[in-house]
Amino acid sequence: MYGFIGFINGGVCAPIGFRAAGVHSGVKANSPDDKLDLALVLGDKVCTAAAVFTRNRVKAAPVLLSQERLSGSRLRAVILNSGNANCCAANDTENAALMAEYAAAALGADRNLIAVASTGVIGQELNIGAIRDAIPALTEALGKSERSSSDAADAIMTTDTIRKEFAVEFEIGEKVVKIGGIAKGSGMIHPNMGTLLSVITTDCAVSPEMLREALGSAVRESFNRVSIDGDTSTNDSCFILASGLAGNAEITERGADFDAFDNALCSLCAKLAIAIASDGEGEKHLITCVVSEAANERKAESIAKSVLSSSLVKTAVFGGDANWGRVLCAMGYSGENFDPKRVDITYRSAAGEVQVCANGSGVNFDEELAAGILSEHDVELLISLNEELEPGEYPQCTCWGCDLSLDYVRINADYRT
Amino acid sequence: MYGFIGFINGGVCAPIGFRAAGVHSGVKANSPDDKLDLALVLGDKVCTAAAVFTRNRVKAAPVLLSQERLSGSRLRAVILNSGNANCCAANDTENAALMAEYAAAALGADRNLIAVASTGVIGQELNIGAIRDAIPALTEALGKSERSSSDAADAIMTTDTIRKEFAVEFEIGEKVVKIGGIAKGSGMIHPNMGTLLSVITTDCAVSPEMLREALGSAVRESFNRVSIDGDTSTNDSCFILASGLAGNAEITERGADFDAFDNALCSLCAKLAIAIASDGEGEKHLITCVVSEAANERKAESIAKSVLSSSLVKTAVFGGDANWGRVLCAMGYSGENFDPKRVDITYRSAAGEVQVCANGSGVNFDEELAAGILSEHDVELLISLNEELEPGEYPQCTCWGCDLSLDYVRINADYRT
Repeated sequence: MYGFIGFINGGVCAPIGFRAAGVHSGVKANSPDDKLDLALVLGDKVCTAAAVFTRNRVKAAPVLLSQERLSGSRLRAVILNSGNANCCAANDTENAALMAEYAAAALGADRNLIAVASTGVIGQELNIGAIRDAIPALTEALGKSERSSSDAADAIMTTDTIRKEFAVEFEIGEKVVKIGGIAKGSGMIHPNMGTLLSVITTDCAVSPEMLREALGSAVRESFNRVSIDGDTSTNDSCFILASGLAGNAEITERGADFDAFDNALCSLCAKLAIAIASDGEGEKHLITCVVSEAANERKAESIAKSVLSSSLVKTAVFGGDANWGRVLCAMGYSGENFDPKRVDITYRSAAGEVQVCANGSGVNFDEELAAGILSEHDVELLISLNEELEPGEYPQCTCWGCDLSLDYVRINADYRT
Repeated sequence: MYGFIGFINGGVCAPIGFRAAGVHSGVKANSPDDKLDLALVLGDKVCTAAAVFTRNRVKAAPVLLSQERLSGSRLRAVILNSGNANCCAANDTENAALMAEYAAAALGADRNLIAVASTGVIGQELNIGAIRDAIPALTEALGKSERSSSDAADAIMTTDTIRKEFAVEFEIGEKVVKIGGIAKGSGMIHPNMGTLLSVITTDCAVSPEMLREALGSAVRESFNRVSIDGDTSTNDSCFILASGLAGNAEITERGADFDAFDNALCSLCAKLAIAIASDGEGEKHLITCVVSEAANERKAESIAKSVLSSSLVKTAVFGGDANWGRVLCAMGYSGENFDPKRVDITYRSAAGEVQVCANGSGVNFDEELAAGILSEHDVELLISLNEELEPGEYPQCTCWGCDLSLDYVRINADYRT
């Protein structure tokens, strides 16, 4: 039986075999005592693991270390901090290794099975002493409760305003399988890769190869379809740990079992990705862009991302202005080939929908209705290329972004200080 | 004798054989009576001509018409309006042709020798009646004075706050040759191509082929090295008209004469490009990014543009924050290959200079000095890749951009209305 069951509580602690914790270490000078900044996600036993990292040419020390640690496809835990990226800074390589080593010692675990992730300012030396001193409190706080997962989720937030934590359960055969995840996003979010940091856990029994494949496709269809400001960070990392305790027959090849796992993982990641787009720095609107009737999905995706990355489109949505000319313009510099004379554009939200462009030309529309539609938090931008398609084909792509607001500038003008 | 002489007054009317004018037509509803919005640059006789247009897949009707008109490499005049892009709007093709036709009739010229350019909102029908009615005043105002060129420059401005108008004179043999130009820029400026609209005039005698070649290289090294918000417009057009009246021997091939012309044209276009970057929407800082000791100029250019396009780098400069980690991060996602461990970064302005990153790692620097440097309007960001070079080689590239300010968002949130 393969039925999608739905979202549940518990975050990374929802699947069997995981504990989590988040504490305040003070790794960032002058951060308030109640700002959690050090997180741990731990498997009760060694887990099958996979990860996806930033494609930025400049990779932070924890990324390089974790890439190495993933080579065996096994992990026991991930330790993460916010407040400092430990990137391009004095002793960055040593400090990334020390983070793992301190955690390993406290847990009695193999240091080579501990991955590390950091997020925050680039170029400042990590206060490794603060992290070392907080490790006893961190391991003591480890729990299997909903609260434990939430603390870990809170501890990786930087300018995020909303905790990103979801879990999902579904069935494989007679067995209930769970996947849980936490993420931090906000600024610096862009295709390749979408999230700064994410840790996903599952009790599904799955081989390393199939776990890697499922994570790859899930990231591609979720985090990599989010664009906030076009910047791709030096520290982006997404980990998945599988305990194998759900009792399902191990997934070792493509088939119905794999599809069930893959679909559930995609749903979870999409939920996290949308939460990230919806919490972009200073954002007032989540913008969902759907490009349809394109010759293929790749083209649809490329055009949607170009539109969502346009500062002019983003400021227009912030201003509640249905300035669709900017949408068409951004489509035009996507690098994709299409016929402008076939393009239709519609704005939609809970307040209604209005077509503003037909066959590449403006149509008279009710400006008041358009303003009402754009006053909603969740706004959809529906673009049809109306290309010639084979019967039955309907390639489309959905991507997510947010508007560009006055607060985005305020937040980022003095982030470092 | 080939000596660079220098900048002079007069704009597009400085070279022999040109007249210009700018008037108010009211093509944009509710625009103030004193906002000039219709411009004409006219050769006394038919000129040799060349042009470069936007590479956006969506090209406005005036761009398509002008591309066609340039096929013969001859033009008599360019008519331009601000306030409406005449793009993706009802009757856009017809209205572009009518603009040229009305001007031709009033001037007694061949309509096929008149190019057209428009800038403003996309998707709204052009008020061709307003333009038709203003043509008599426009042709009556035609003059050879400095004022005539300034009026034309003012008439193509949209959100620009500073008139962009320069002229240069230099010698070819015994003859003094002049080049003049006007441009409008501001938002939507990005590599390929940098300016929304520019008209350049020269009295140099030069063949169509050599004129095209000189314009191509000048645009590549000036307008295409400016980035303001990453958007490339549907209407970008840069025209050059050569009257041939300076008396020099016609330039028909590469050589010293061509180099003198090419250098002067590049200088003029760089001056216009810098004025455009310096007048980016809402900008508080002109940012000049120099990438040096790169293996080649192409790589240096690509990295400089990636840095200048980063919203995070731009907001940091707006905030007076020497957050060089964002610079390194933006270099990393440029798509170019380089060794982060060799990168040096220095901020410089009239207030001094400070190195903030050496060998890809943060150095202790005087934050007060850095803040002082970033408080100047003109800020330089000097990046060295320190790559292995052949002796005597020193490939580098200079590009220009501006910061991302609160006013950028304010301006663009309600531009259309």
